[in-house]
Amino acid sequence: MGLLMQKNILFIMCDQLRFDYLSCYGHEHLHTPNVDALAAKGIRFNNAYAQSPICGPSRMSFYTGRYVRSHGSTWNCTPLRIGEPTLGDHLNAIGVRNVLLGKTHMRADREGMKRLGIDCESEIGLFNAECGFEVYERDDGLHPDAYQDACPRYNQYLNDNGFDGANPWQSWANSAKGESGELLSGWLMENADKPARIPDYYSETPYLTRRAMDFIDDANDTPWCLHLSYIKPHWPYMAPAPYHNMYNSTQVQAAIRSEEETQNTHPLLNAFMQHNYSQTCSRDDFRERVIPTYMGLIKQLDDQLGLLFAHLEKRGLNEDTMIVFTSDHGDYLGDHWLGDKELFHDAAVKIPLIIFDPSKDADGTRGHTSQQLVESIDLAPTFIEYMGGRIKKNVLEGHSLLPLLHGENKPLRRYAFSELDYASSYACIQLNMASTDARAVMVRDKQYKYIYVEGMRPLLFDLQQDPQELNDLGTSEKYQNICQRFEWAILKWSLKHHNRITLTDEQIETSRGNELDEGIFIGYWDQDEVNQAMSKAGKS
Amino acid sequence: MGLLMQKNILFIMCDQLRFDYLSCYGHEHLHTPNVDALAAKGIRFNNAYAQSPICGPSRMSFYTGRYVRSHGSTWNCTPLRIGEPTLGDHLNAIGVRNVLLGKTHMRADREGMKRLGIDCESEIGLFNAECGFEVYERDDGLHPDAYQDACPRYNQYLNDNGFDGANPWQSWANSAKGESGELLSGWLMENADKPARIPDYYSETPYLTRRAMDFIDDANDTPWCLHLSYIKPHWPYMAPAPYHNMYNSTQVQAAIRSEEETQNTHPLLNAFMQHNYSQTCSRDDFRERVIPTYMGLIKQLDDQLGLLFAHLEKRGLNEDTMIVFTSDHGDYLGDHWLGDKELFHDAAVKIPLIIFDPSKDADGTRGHTSQQLVESIDLAPTFIEYMGGRIKKNVLEGHSLLPLLHGENKPLRRYAFSELDYASSYACIQLNMASTDARAVMVRDKQYKYIYVEGMRPLLFDLQQDPQELNDLGTSEKYQNICQRFEWAILKWSLKHHNRITLTDEQIETSRGNELDEGIFIGYWDQDEVNQAMSKAGKS
Repeated sequence: MGLLMQKNILFIMCDQLRFDYLSCYGHEHLHTPNVDALAAKGIRFNNAYAQSPICGPSRMSFYTGRYVRSHGSTWNCTPLRIGEPTLGDHLNAIGVRNVLLGKTHMRADREGMKRLGIDCESEIGLFNAECGFEVYERDDGLHPDAYQDACPRYNQYLNDNGFDGANPWQSWANSAKGESGELLSGWLMENADKPARIPDYYSETPYLTRRAMDFIDDANDTPWCLHLSYIKPHWPYMAPAPYHNMYNSTQVQAAIRSEEETQNTHPLLNAFMQHNYSQTCSRDDFRERVIPTYMGLIKQLDDQLGLLFAHLEKRGLNEDTMIVFTSDHGDYLGDHWLGDKELFHDAAVKIPLIIFDPSKDADGTRGHTSQQLVESIDLAPTFIEYMGGRIKKNVLEGHSLLPLLHGENKPLRRYAFSELDYASSYACIQLNMASTDARAVMVRDKQYKYIYVEGMRPLLFDLQQDPQELNDLGTSEKYQNICQRFEWAILKWSLKHHNRITLTDEQIETSRGNELDEGIFIGYWDQDEVNQAMSKAGKS
Repeated sequence: MGLLMQKNILFIMCDQLRFDYLSCYGHEHLHTPNVDALAAKGIRFNNAYAQSPICGPSRMSFYTGRYVRSHGSTWNCTPLRIGEPTLGDHLNAIGVRNVLLGKTHMRADREGMKRLGIDCESEIGLFNAECGFEVYERDDGLHPDAYQDACPRYNQYLNDNGFDGANPWQSWANSAKGESGELLSGWLMENADKPARIPDYYSETPYLTRRAMDFIDDANDTPWCLHLSYIKPHWPYMAPAPYHNMYNSTQVQAAIRSEEETQNTHPLLNAFMQHNYSQTCSRDDFRERVIPTYMGLIKQLDDQLGLLFAHLEKRGLNEDTMIVFTSDHGDYLGDHWLGDKELFHDAAVKIPLIIFDPSKDADGTRGHTSQQLVESIDLAPTFIEYMGGRIKKNVLEGHSLLPLLHGENKPLRRYAFSELDYASSYACIQLNMASTDARAVMVRDKQYKYIYVEGMRPLLFDLQQDPQELNDLGTSEKYQNICQRFEWAILKWSLKHHNRITLTDEQIETSRGNELDEGIFIGYWDQDEVNQAMSKAGKS
């Protein structure tokens, strides 16, 4: 399993970037030429889904290659159980560095580590506490003053450059200045149209981009997978000039929603519609004042990616570096009368995904778009195979996309899944749902999206007839057979042995009949029967 | 959570003991007065089920309090993933020793331990490698000559007592002598009616019983849970005199099977019926020659339990020691044309379960029998609660039986589950089933037992009309609604967050809304909205 040449992977993730806020995905006014250029030399996936529409669980699936129900970190800040195998475990095993720059949202299982006597400060302890990453720089992106543990290197960087204060992330990068010089908090959406107090150059996205260049320049000959995990365009929605007013309300896409959606609304949707952020994001002034800034933050990202890709080329790394561009989930932005993410409309759960494979084998697919159903857990096996490793099928639950990148077009899967555990959400209280039952599962095939909601009726959308997902067919008699088919699909999926990770299928198959070798004879009457069994099993 | 007095638990498990091979469970000819006496002062459960009808997975569920799909050790010798919380973790946390004497069938996850830098020989390493037990003496019971790692203390004991040879377990305890002095192997059923070469006193069951007395006498004031895990009546079916011929074929219960079962047989059952041990156990000479020895081994167990209970009483421990008697699964013994275990007829998956709680609170239920649906995962929480600990509901998936022992009779559950992963079995090959799909799930309620079989039609038995499970209703149109109800029950059960073990529901509920305290404001337009939310959440 040695490597034929030094390959690298640049694994770029944005935070809360909607798939359709890129020009290559069809946005009319938000032009992202650098992302588009990557799509032009790679494959752009039109049906890629996050394993959960929330940061933490979605990322844990990216970083383990396993479904949320498998790794068990079902909500933000739910520790990832110690021992859960990570992408880093798989890559390190074949001599590849798995490097973090930016956000993971990882919460370590300190109780479990203590139980196993693992020192959190030891090399192995840190590796596991950081979700299998070698930390070049971690920054989870949210550093309110009240956070005791908020001390990103970025704050030191800002201080060093004359932006003073205990928490310049808050007071400079995510605040604006009022007419009388007062601070206007980036946390408050009414301020979204103001420029951040710092110039573009010093803001988070350019800073992380330059840090990525630093890593690339510092890296030795060991192959690496650099997870460049940007913080934006996740809220606080505040951009530095000129991005804060680069777009105006006439360039904001129309909201995807209908009055009908507010009638006989499914109880789960209804509960989330009551959340303050859903109400706020449903307002017209949100669209006019906040979304242009969201667009500006994306434009800033695209500009920075242009610089980064140029740097890679200058270093001559563009011929052996796989480049992946994606997001952990989307952002409702008021669509369907909802805000933030958490539920299963495409606005929240579908992700942009572009993969550039520099190898000759991929020349036949450059610029292609794929309609295949892709899950975020497909990236880990793709990276491992690209780096020359063997994929542990029982542990890694996705499929390598390499064959597809190399021109094969067999269907990857019939169904894609995503999961929600909303026990931590106010909706759980509003619905008077027991914490242990506050769950939903999305499954989609080529045509339909079905959502199983524990203790409630299901939701069903026909994505061919109703691509905007405005018409819930879950209660329609006519679709009961369809619903039943999806129930079965979920049943078969959920019954898989998601936890049988200590033996591979291959190991199980080769060990069949070993008891004979070991002299364990189960239910033989006499020696003749034993001898027959031995020869039948090709032993003796 | 301190202990009011020193309590202990004697957790007795037999290996492959059928629930109905005890007189208190209705056997006509096999009298087990000592087990019956325990039932007379405790509660005897008539509907207790193993989480899997196979040693390893069933035991891992007993020892973790978690379903097989949760702990992931789905077949014998499938390592239990490192970090999986065990009964020992829960008991040690409240100052109770969790002591092993006998069999666990545990296979350590050495690869996972290595990945986490855990030295298998360290205290924590050994504790985890031994499934959370402090090993007083481990003996998994099968020590054929070919086993390189076969060196039980029992062999040394036999050598010390004049039974020579490298493996006296095989050559003395599990062999008989032929007319011309030759060894007759206990592995071969044709020899089952011969007496083992050693006297009763030196055979495995009395040996382990005396070792239990040794532990009880040696134990200090620390409360203990002693898992006395007998090896018998598991095959090899060979008993010492007088137990080898204490019963005759006229005292063997009639086989539970019908000719109809061999017509249009369900493919999964049919595949297992083809196994050599099913064919052997279906023969009349098996019933006549082997089952009487199986009965003798159980009689020997009962005699030894009499001595053990007397010893407890002599030590004055009978007033503060909870005594549990059970088995890891049953034995088909030719019923339904099957041998050994593995499938879901009561002969294999139902277990005997008797619990004696010495406390006054249990006086009202002494001698009762319970029809409640009990799962083997209920024992761990029962032990923890008996010992004064708090039950981590997310981690422990069963229910404490203490309320029931103390007279409450609320239904524990509507459905009981058991699981099978037969990827390691020849049936998987015969059925040409992919290893990853070789699974089945049993669910039963008060009246029915439904078996979901991946890729095949289901099985359904009406246990009220057909207690012998001879009439499969799985294909009958009339029962399609019943089948659908059970499919839903499996779906709801399998979708539970079996892996969300790093946070308790309580922790999740109390942390709701913490983001406000931390200064993370999600989707607020202005400070007024923030203030309103703060006061609404009782903060500020």
